[in-house]
Amino acid sequence: MSEAPSTASGWIDEHHNGVRYGLQGDVIADEQSAIQRITVIHSHRYGNGLLLDGCWMTAEHQERHYHEPLVHPALCAARSIDRVLVIGGGDGGTARECLRHHAVKHVDLVEIDGRVVELSQKHLAAIGGGCWSDPRFQLTVGDGIAWVGEASDASYDVVLVDGSDPAGPAEGLFNRSFFQHCRRILKPGGVFATQSESPEAFRAVHIDTVRMLREVFGHADPLYGWVPMYPSGWWSWTFAASDGPRYRSPDPERAAAIGPGCDIWSPRWQAGAFEAIPASIERELSA
Amino acid sequence: MSEAPSTASGWIDEHHNGVRYGLQGDVIADEQSAIQRITVIHSHRYGNGLLLDGCWMTAEHQERHYHEPLVHPALCAARSIDRVLVIGGGDGGTARECLRHHAVKHVDLVEIDGRVVELSQKHLAAIGGGCWSDPRFQLTVGDGIAWVGEASDASYDVVLVDGSDPAGPAEGLFNRSFFQHCRRILKPGGVFATQSESPEAFRAVHIDTVRMLREVFGHADPLYGWVPMYPSGWWSWTFAASDGPRYRSPDPERAAAIGPGCDIWSPRWQAGAFEAIPASIERELSA
Repeated sequence: MSEAPSTASGWIDEHHNGVRYGLQGDVIADEQSAIQRITVIHSHRYGNGLLLDGCWMTAEHQERHYHEPLVHPALCAARSIDRVLVIGGGDGGTARECLRHHAVKHVDLVEIDGRVVELSQKHLAAIGGGCWSDPRFQLTVGDGIAWVGEASDASYDVVLVDGSDPAGPAEGLFNRSFFQHCRRILKPGGVFATQSESPEAFRAVHIDTVRMLREVFGHADPLYGWVPMYPSGWWSWTFAASDGPRYRSPDPERAAAIGPGCDIWSPRWQAGAFEAIPASIERELSA
Repeated sequence: MSEAPSTASGWIDEHHNGVRYGLQGDVIADEQSAIQRITVIHSHRYGNGLLLDGCWMTAEHQERHYHEPLVHPALCAARSIDRVLVIGGGDGGTARECLRHHAVKHVDLVEIDGRVVELSQKHLAAIGGGCWSDPRFQLTVGDGIAWVGEASDASYDVVLVDGSDPAGPAEGLFNRSFFQHCRRILKPGGVFATQSESPEAFRAVHIDTVRMLREVFGHADPLYGWVPMYPSGWWSWTFAASDGPRYRSPDPERAAAIGPGCDIWSPRWQAGAFEAIPASIERELSA
């Protein structure tokens, strides 16, 4: 997963396990940061797009498939949403969706690679939108795992993990110690959410993540949706809370304020996406 | 969509609108039938796979993502399931899933291209499984649209359309006259189902199909799932019935008999998949 994207003949591909997903277009930036290889392309189909270590992260006209399902089940369900922590998410899309909730007073975004932020601000400006200049928003370039370890108990209402696959810089975002700190820093009534990989292309990681979150938080459920550019196109996000599966019940007022601006997410879509667990995954999770 | 698949350097790709999805492997058959170009490959990831006119149709280790969602909501919900008609489906996977229901007495499969059947029997034998020799199964190589036009009123309990994209031989499977005949040949309490394309990669066709089925049958609803090898990975099947949305309520006994052998489908998965309609599609369908 760390190989450079193939760019021969105008196609930029991510290769994964004998499958490739490619967009036709041109590379507009390609550099090795201190952390990883960062590639920005212009695609005919989805506008500008971002790859990290050769893996598709986001694109201007496909990012809502990912950001809306990560953000709104959590932001519509936590008891209060004054303070939100985003780990990763250097393209700004997760922060942008959080800041659409007027009750949010402060968003900390901790991104390990400052070059991802800089290149996103330059080439993917629509994804972050107004987040970068929102007075409620605070960017920290640094290690999200250390941030979570050092944060005070009960200091956030919502913690969102918007990281890449569990290899390289994101590996530590999928382990018990990290999740235990996330639970510790959540206020009562808080909600945790993380992207939790494809149940098809990363089945074992997906199942392990859901199981571990259930053990750590007491309540956790995967939600299934689609991000065409990710391996298999089929994706999941897992939500967790200590005081019950509150992430399954969006507050009607918050949902009504946010829903009309959404492309994918709605309370109905969310209710379905939590139930649409494939039979063999359900059997394995309950075994 | 009728171009030959790209096979350079061990990759076989479907190209669609500036996106490509490729499997690594080898071409094992590639011919022009009277109807279309038929390509069979061996892939590292999903076993043997089939393309028609350069578009992915199925593969041994991915076919259940498609066949279970098409078959079981209909077969678990029609009042009786004595007689089933499958239009297309020359790989045999849809018929195989139908024949798992012991109450099914007869399946007519009408496939326009006999070479698809022959090559599937040879190279994709696991997909058809025992269907080809099942005494309840009748294969007709011929025009499914003519078959539906000539069939008697109220002669089938279930009609399933397992065709390719609405260009080339499958174009006539997406129009009002065809759907009206499908309604006519259904018995009271019958259920119709068709694959209804990707809400992302074929959005207009998807919406038109759902709307037209609602007009023709009175009740029709899309169900959303995943077929990684199809454009966007995100797929839909639309179910229709004249006497109400009975396809949303699987018979518990039939479901209990079928469910344990399913990889994707379950009553829970189905309930979610009918609700997981993306917000912008729901708005457009209700406009």
